[in-house]
Amino acid sequence: MMSIRDRIEEEFSAIRWHDDSLWLLDQRLLPREEQWLRCDSVTAVVDAIRDMVVRGAPAIGITAAYGVVVALQASVAEGSQTWREDLAAAHEQLAASRPTAVNLAWALTRMQKMLSTQADDLAPVEPALEEARAIHYEDIMANKTMGALGADYIRAVSERGQAHVPGVLTHCNTGALATGGYGTALGVIRSAFRESLFETVFADETRPWLQGSRLTAWELQKEGIPVVLNADSAAATLMAAGKVSWVIVGADRIASNGDVANKIGTYALAVLARHHGVKFMVAAPCSTLDMALTTGQDIPIEQRGESELCAYAGVDIAPHDIQVYNPVFDVTPAEWVDAIVTERGVIEAPDSFKIESMLKR
Amino acid sequence: MMSIRDRIEEEFSAIRWHDDSLWLLDQRLLPREEQWLRCDSVTAVVDAIRDMVVRGAPAIGITAAYGVVVALQASVAEGSQTWREDLAAAHEQLAASRPTAVNLAWALTRMQKMLSTQADDLAPVEPALEEARAIHYEDIMANKTMGALGADYIRAVSERGQAHVPGVLTHCNTGALATGGYGTALGVIRSAFRESLFETVFADETRPWLQGSRLTAWELQKEGIPVVLNADSAAATLMAAGKVSWVIVGADRIASNGDVANKIGTYALAVLARHHGVKFMVAAPCSTLDMALTTGQDIPIEQRGESELCAYAGVDIAPHDIQVYNPVFDVTPAEWVDAIVTERGVIEAPDSFKIESMLKR
Repeated sequence: MMSIRDRIEEEFSAIRWHDDSLWLLDQRLLPREEQWLRCDSVTAVVDAIRDMVVRGAPAIGITAAYGVVVALQASVAEGSQTWREDLAAAHEQLAASRPTAVNLAWALTRMQKMLSTQADDLAPVEPALEEARAIHYEDIMANKTMGALGADYIRAVSERGQAHVPGVLTHCNTGALATGGYGTALGVIRSAFRESLFETVFADETRPWLQGSRLTAWELQKEGIPVVLNADSAAATLMAAGKVSWVIVGADRIASNGDVANKIGTYALAVLARHHGVKFMVAAPCSTLDMALTTGQDIPIEQRGESELCAYAGVDIAPHDIQVYNPVFDVTPAEWVDAIVTERGVIEAPDSFKIESMLKR
Repeated sequence: MMSIRDRIEEEFSAIRWHDDSLWLLDQRLLPREEQWLRCDSVTAVVDAIRDMVVRGAPAIGITAAYGVVVALQASVAEGSQTWREDLAAAHEQLAASRPTAVNLAWALTRMQKMLSTQADDLAPVEPALEEARAIHYEDIMANKTMGALGADYIRAVSERGQAHVPGVLTHCNTGALATGGYGTALGVIRSAFRESLFETVFADETRPWLQGSRLTAWELQKEGIPVVLNADSAAATLMAAGKVSWVIVGADRIASNGDVANKIGTYALAVLARHHGVKFMVAAPCSTLDMALTTGQDIPIEQRGESELCAYAGVDIAPHDIQVYNPVFDVTPAEWVDAIVTERGVIEAPDSFKIESMLKR
C-alpha cells in the first residue's frame, strides 16, 4: 500500500516536506522562475506566508501545519525541555501571519489538538509531521471530491437548459498552487473540462498581485487547458458578450450564513454575474467554513501596502507618496452565491440552515 | 488682447505647437519621466496616436488636427503642387490610427471643411494652424464650461439630499493629459473640489494601461487634490463601504441614444453604481457625440495586443504564448447613465430626444 507521503508526492504541490525540511515554491517569482525556498525556522515560515511565497487559503493552512513541525524540530535542536511553551510562541506567530484565511487557524487548532495528546518529555516531531501530512493529503482528496461534485452540478444545471455556454471565468488562483494540490475552484474547472463541460477558461489577471496571469494561466497552460487572460475590468464585457456561463471562485473564509470572503473583485463578479444571468459558484473545503461567525461582516479584511499598487518588479507605476486603498479581500453576501461546493456536497442558494445540515451529515 | 496661442499656453497641455513643430508629452513614460516628443512627419503623428504617446479622445482629435498642419508643412517642404492629394493620403492615415474615439474623425472633418475653402496653389499651413489652435482652445473652454455645469449639477443633487458623501471615483484619465487642457470628467472633479463638493478622489488604476495610477494620480497630486489609488476590482467595495457618492468618467464616443463607449471597466462601474445607489456621470464635449449611430452597439471597439496584459516595463507578468481578451473600451447602455454633461448642458437620464434637443439649442 502506498504511504500518504507517496500519495502526496504523486500530485503537483507547491509545498513539499523533503530532506527533513519544509520547501515552498516561491510564487512571487512565477511564471518567470521556478525556485524552491527552504524554510528552516518558524520565522522563515511566517515570513513566507506574510510575503506571499505561498498564498491561497488551503495552502496557507497546510504550510502552517508544517510550520508546527519546523517549530518542534527547533525545540529538539536547542535541547529545549519545554516544547509546549516553545510551540505556543510559534503558534501565535504563525496565527498572526495573515488575517483573512480561516484555514490557517483551522490547521493550527488541529495540530494543537493532536499535540495535546502527546507526552511532555520529548518534542513529538514525527507525530506532528504525520498530522501535517494528513492535513495536506486530506486537502488534495477534498479538492478531488469537490472537482467531481462541482462538475456533476455544472452538468445538472446545463441539463436543466441553463448556463450551457462552454466558457467559464475564474478569479485569482485556486489551483494546485493555492492548495495542497489539484485546486478548489480550479479543481472544479479541471474536472469539468475533462468531462467536456467547458472549452475555454477565462482568467481574470487579478490585480494587484496578478495571481491570474502569473499563476492560473501558468497552471492551465502547463495542463493544456485553453486559457484566455483578461483584465479584471473586462469581466462584465465577457458576460455581456455571452462568452461565459459560469463564474467559479474559491474562498478564504465562509461565514455560517454563507457570506464569502475571497480575493478583492469577487463581490463585483457576483453582482455582475447575477445581472447577466451567469451562474456564480464558490468551491472551498469545509476547513474554510467559520461557523463562529454569524455573517461575513465580521471577517477581518487584510489591507496590504501601497507597493502592490505603486510598483512592479522595481519599476514605479504610480507617483511617489501616493495614498492607496488596497483591501485584498472582499465579502460577497450569500444572496449573490448560486452554489457553494465543499467536499461534503453542493449547497444551492446557501444559508445557515443548509450549511449546518451539511456539516451534520 | 491675448491671442489664442497665448491662451492655450496659459494652460497645462500635453500637446504643444512650438518652434514650427508638434510636440507631445510622452504619456507612456509618465510618471517616471517627463519627455516631450517632436512629431515632424504624419507617420510620426500616426505612430504617436497608435502607440499612445498621446491618448484620450479629445487629445487624439486635437493631435490629429495639428497632424494636418504637419502634413501641409511636408507638402510645402517637398515643393509639392498637389497639396490636396497629399493631404487626402495623410487624412486617411490619421483617421485609421485608432478606431473608437470619434473626436479623431470629428477634428479631421473640421480641418477638411476649412481647407476646402482655401486656394489650390499653395498649401495653407497658416490657416490650418489657426484652425488646429481653435480646436485646441475650444476644447479647453468646453472643459471649463463642463466643469462649472458638472459642479453645479453635483451641488443640486446633493441639495436634493442625495449623494452627499464627499468622495468620488473616477476611471482612466480624463484630465489635462487626455484633452486640450483642464479635462472632462477630471475637469468636473477639479471644479467640484474647488467648490468643496468633494474631499477625496478615488482613482481606479485602470488596467491594462494604468492611466489611473500613472496619469490621474500624477495630475491630481500635482494639483494638491487628495487622491487615493485603488485596484479596479476594489471599486465595488468602495461603493459598498459608502466611501463614494459619485462615479464620474469621460467618453470616447457617445451614440445618439446616449450609449457611452469608454475605457474598459466603465460598464461594470455603471452597473455597480446603480446597484449601490451611487450616481454615475459621463462628462464629454459635444465632439464626442456620434449622431450617425443609433446605439452603442455600432461603435467599433478596439482590441489591443497581448503585451499590455503580459508584460510591464519589459518584465513578463504572464507565461509566454498566452491568449488574451483585451478590448480596451466597453459600451455602457444609456439606461445606466444618470447624467451626461457636455459644454452645452446637463442631460439627466439621457435618450436620443434629449440629446438632439440639446444640440439644437
